Amino acid sequence: MNRLTGKVVIAQGGGPTAVINQSLVGAVLEARKFSAVTRVWGARHGVRGIVAETFVDLSEATSHNLERVARTPSSALGSTRDKPDAAYCQRIFEAFRKHEVRYFFYIGGNDSSDTVRIVTEHADREGYELRALHIPKTVDNDLPITDHCPGYPSAARFVASALGGVNADLLALPGVYIAVIMGRHAGWLTAAAALARKHDDDGPHLIYLPERQFSIERYLADIERVYQQQGRCVVAISEGVWASRDGKGQAIPVTVDLLRQAGREPEVDAHGNIQLSGGALADELAAVVQKSLGIKRVRADTFGYLQRSFPGVVSAVDAREAREVGEKAAHYACGRDLSGSVVIERIGDYAVRYALADVREIAAQTRCMPDAFITTDGNGVTDAFRDYLRPLLGDDMPDLERLGAPAVEPGHD
Amino acid sequence: MNRLTGKVVIAQGGGPTAVINQSLVGAVLEARKFSAVTRVWGARHGVRGIVAETFVDLSEATSHNLERVARTPSSALGSTRDKPDAAYCQRIFEAFRKHEVRYFFYIGGNDSSDTVRIVTEHADREGYELRALHIPKTVDNDLPITDHCPGYPSAARFVASALGGVNADLLALPGVYIAVIMGRHAGWLTAAAALARKHDDDGPHLIYLPERQFSIERYLADIERVYQQQGRCVVAISEGVWASRDGKGQAIPVTVDLLRQAGREPEVDAHGNIQLSGGALADELAAVVQKSLGIKRVRADTFGYLQRSFPGVVSAVDAREAREVGEKAAHYACGRDLSGSVVIERIGDYAVRYALADVREIAAQTRCMPDAFITTDGNGVTDAFRDYLRPLLGDDMPDLERLGAPAVEPGHD
Repeated sequence: MNRLTGKVVIAQGGGPTAVINQSLVGAVLEARKFSAVTRVWGARHGVRGIVAETFVDLSEATSHNLERVARTPSSALGSTRDKPDAAYCQRIFEAFRKHEVRYFFYIGGNDSSDTVRIVTEHADREGYELRALHIPKTVDNDLPITDHCPGYPSAARFVASALGGVNADLLALPGVYIAVIMGRHAGWLTAAAALARKHDDDGPHLIYLPERQFSIERYLADIERVYQQQGRCVVAISEGVWASRDGKGQAIPVTVDLLRQAGREPEVDAHGNIQLSGGALADELAAVVQKSLGIKRVRADTFGYLQRSFPGVVSAVDAREAREVGEKAAHYACGRDLSGSVVIERIGDYAVRYALADVREIAAQTRCMPDAFITTDGNGVTDAFRDYLRPLLGDDMPDLERLGAPAVEPGHD
Repeated sequence: MNRLTGKVVIAQGGGPTAVINQSLVGAVLEARKFSAVTRVWGARHGVRGIVAETFVDLSEATSHNLERVARTPSSALGSTRDKPDAAYCQRIFEAFRKHEVRYFFYIGGNDSSDTVRIVTEHADREGYELRALHIPKTVDNDLPITDHCPGYPSAARFVASALGGVNADLLALPGVYIAVIMGRHAGWLTAAAALARKHDDDGPHLIYLPERQFSIERYLADIERVYQQQGRCVVAISEGVWASRDGKGQAIPVTVDLLRQAGREPEVDAHGNIQLSGGALADELAAVVQKSLGIKRVRADTFGYLQRSFPGVVSAVDAREAREVGEKAAHYACGRDLSGSVVIERIGDYAVRYALADVREIAAQTRCMPDAFITTDGNGVTDAFRDYLRPLLGDDMPDLERLGAPAVEPGHD
């Protein structure tokens, strides 16, 4: 039995998802049941709220309010892009000691798990007993060890649904359509577009991922081939695709090439990540098809912020699992006196169980799509990927139907 | 009782919607019940399929297939942007006479209703008995007489849902967000963003419509004011906003100004409509905020094709009404020997009844938002508009919840 008496502080970091509040509410409701937990505080805007000591008392939130928050997308506590350095961590730690915080839950992606790692190491050095849990979330699905990341299935559902609608749209009004989808280093979310395919000739016909080097010549040749065969072509492409590398061997996103051609430098966030938002990549990818292939009707959309926190497009499987990783975190920390990162293990077809991983194995790692999920041509995904993703989307995906009416033969009346 | 024996030809024109197949299926299933109807044919890709004589025999489609098609977004028969001139109409008419077509149903917007008008007048001149029905659909909601247009409520639901998610996103990670929404001449769809607001400080905080002249100086001053008050600002803006007029008094969309500044001319479709797709407007509106106001985190999305045929984001009210306008068309034509355009009349709060209007009163007209729906400042919508739209979205809109936990007071433990 756990003897470590003190407060819980829970926070949310990084980009929001449609189900990140399920994890928040799962952790809060379970943590409140442990007698060693004196209060459950939420930090406003991630680690920033810890150092600023802007807390809300989640011990006083009603269960009804929390249940409704759980079904609301985006981070209810507020989020941050701050990535603490040593001095920042010292301040986090001082806030914890001052308020007798013994349990720290941080819901986030790669950068947030790294924050948990640093704070944990700091507490160890100071000899302060702290149970620190990383609760995974990211629409990018790029954390190692865990089978998948809460938030990804719902974003994938948005992408697959969107491409289903776009494919139906292009069947009605043919042309070329290009969807630019989130994913800086890993193509998981872009790849989800493949789940829109039902009939053999359904789009997306081409999928380009940052796991493979992009070539504009190859892209044009691919589109020309599909368009000649089918009279239309639907393309899903990751915002992070790259065609060249810099002097240090780092991939340069095509978006950055385009910006630099226009005489501008890309925006860089607090973590040194290049900002890839904006419609320039989509516009350029459409313009080059019009210009080089002479196809008149070419449209491109950048899915942008819609894909990560759209209310009402949520995978029930994702919502359930996001809830449970939060609950598990509370049990590991408050019930079993453990620290680490909660991971999902896939067992059977389809079931999961939860486990605890060393946060050092998670932190600041990026898991890209394995080769087995990408076609040898590099412009599509394999059945193995479809089998991986399908159960995560829930069993109620829209199933689009084509007319089954026979063509009227010439001369027939 | 109706004595006019012959075939039905049904077709779909213009941009797809999420519920246009409800109208198709409603008309087909009802028309098949009339003994005077010998066959129900669908023309592939609108009027283009009539002159090319590419028909499918919808008399042989199973009811089960049709019911599933009804729930599928986009135009199942295919669509077209062709707008028939006199010669084209002559060919439509010859196809009708050749195949003994006596009933013509065309599901579409302004341009499609004009096609119905021309074909009807042509048949009258030729003394050929033809019942021609325009069945309204358009996400733009810009047809006159009808209270609203099937397809609009579902697209409005998408826009309002998206803005709800974006508002939650900006509460978590503050900044400025700009959504560019469909609507060339009328702001109905952009205005729907207002239905995302629940709390007084929820976005969208500013809404710009093509019913009012746009000024970049005013736009910047508005954003600066909101941002200073709230630390964030969510903007919904129509793709059709304009800041100046050409020599003939025609409004020039800001997108066109931007293209011309970049040395390019806008793409023009077969109807002479300027193509407004692409992300340039959004990118420019974001860049000017960053540059002029010095706000670092500014994001902009162009909703593009997602908003008009997204599977799974459908208003139940819209689906029901779209079905019924199709059914009504069959009853007016095949049962009561009438021609015209089906319109929706709002009665009570909220109920509707259907009526038949003269297609000449519908054709090629654009209904913009009335002054009573736009705030005097011109950067928002009124409660009257919210009251108009709310019942159309269905009673199951996502209801986003904020945390009800009290702040921890300084010094409190």
